[in-house]
Amino acid sequence: MKILVIGATGTIGAAVVHVLEARHEVLSASHTRSALTVDLAAPDSIRHLYAKVGRIDAVVSTAGEAAFHPLLALSDADFAVSLTNKLMGQVNLVRFGAEVLADGGSFTLTTGILSRQPMPGGAAISMVNAGLEGFVRAAALELPRGLRINAVAPGWVRETLVAMKMDPHPGIPAAQLAQTYLAAVEGSATGQILDAVTGAG
Amino acid sequence: MKILVIGATGTIGAAVVHVLEARHEVLSASHTRSALTVDLAAPDSIRHLYAKVGRIDAVVSTAGEAAFHPLLALSDADFAVSLTNKLMGQVNLVRFGAEVLADGGSFTLTTGILSRQPMPGGAAISMVNAGLEGFVRAAALELPRGLRINAVAPGWVRETLVAMKMDPHPGIPAAQLAQTYLAAVEGSATGQILDAVTGAG
Repeated sequence: MKILVIGATGTIGAAVVHVLEARHEVLSASHTRSALTVDLAAPDSIRHLYAKVGRIDAVVSTAGEAAFHPLLALSDADFAVSLTNKLMGQVNLVRFGAEVLADGGSFTLTTGILSRQPMPGGAAISMVNAGLEGFVRAAALELPRGLRINAVAPGWVRETLVAMKMDPHPGIPAAQLAQTYLAAVEGSATGQILDAVTGAG
Repeated sequence: MKILVIGATGTIGAAVVHVLEARHEVLSASHTRSALTVDLAAPDSIRHLYAKVGRIDAVVSTAGEAAFHPLLALSDADFAVSLTNKLMGQVNLVRFGAEVLADGGSFTLTTGILSRQPMPGGAAISMVNAGLEGFVRAAALELPRGLRINAVAPGWVRETLVAMKMDPHPGIPAAQLAQTYLAAVEGSATGQILDAVTGAG
């Protein structure tokens, strides 16, 4: 398969690219640091990216910015960035990509466990993660030509916890998480929110 | 209690006002047809409404516009209206109201069953309903002074089905649904998504 990975230079994205590359052709895109660049917050940037890559079999997004601040400190701008970037950025990958993907192709997006297991500071992130999951469940009913759509909802990633000098134990290694993305791309599920099991890995 | 009801002239809102009025002081607000008016899509309009009503004990919202169209026919504007009105309009009722409500007060918002049970045409509505539910679960962790927040997630309302000349049988009567809002206002739940049971009523 020819697979476009957006957010390819991030902690999760790099692990996903590594796993996919062993078996597929991967086109890496990110905001600034890849051969292909895209600004998820700008619809025209997404359209431009699709025009550049041509026909592909799958899109994997591990990208999307959202604001983490105490509830009453979240500004109008914090909500706007979260909605425009992590939520509508990934929704627009589907809307504009639905005409570009080959028959039977797939979208695999990234939400996060805060959609269902909230924590203080995460109200805007919980909102956009849950919103994206609602969109995934609904869009799966209407995508044409056998296109599939799923979302992976990661919890803490071990490498992120290490970088933040926190206890790495609750985190899942990025390489293990990447297997969930691989399963979404190569499998037949659609409309699903896929949890990555936290393992002793 | 002194309760502000937003969307007071709608099918659900009117039934909620009727049930609440028997036991509480109700201030009715809607976009254009109540003594108090508010445009949910305009943050300053919400701030103005709160400044006008002064200290209150509860806010109930049965308002919020969102677009119902086939997935690939949903325009940028359809998504923008849905996010600005039903999602951020109700989120802003909480953000700005958190400073206005009396200690121990409550917010009761309205999402809808499409958050979890999608149907063709409902992708934008599923997105904003689910997003609002994610926000409710998270905001409950951080609201100050014992403030509570919940959402009611209605399915079809019988009166709406009758007005649309559809089979009314699957619908819940608005008066029965209103009991769920009453329970949210008078009870002690927080962070919950409350389902209204469809009954033979």
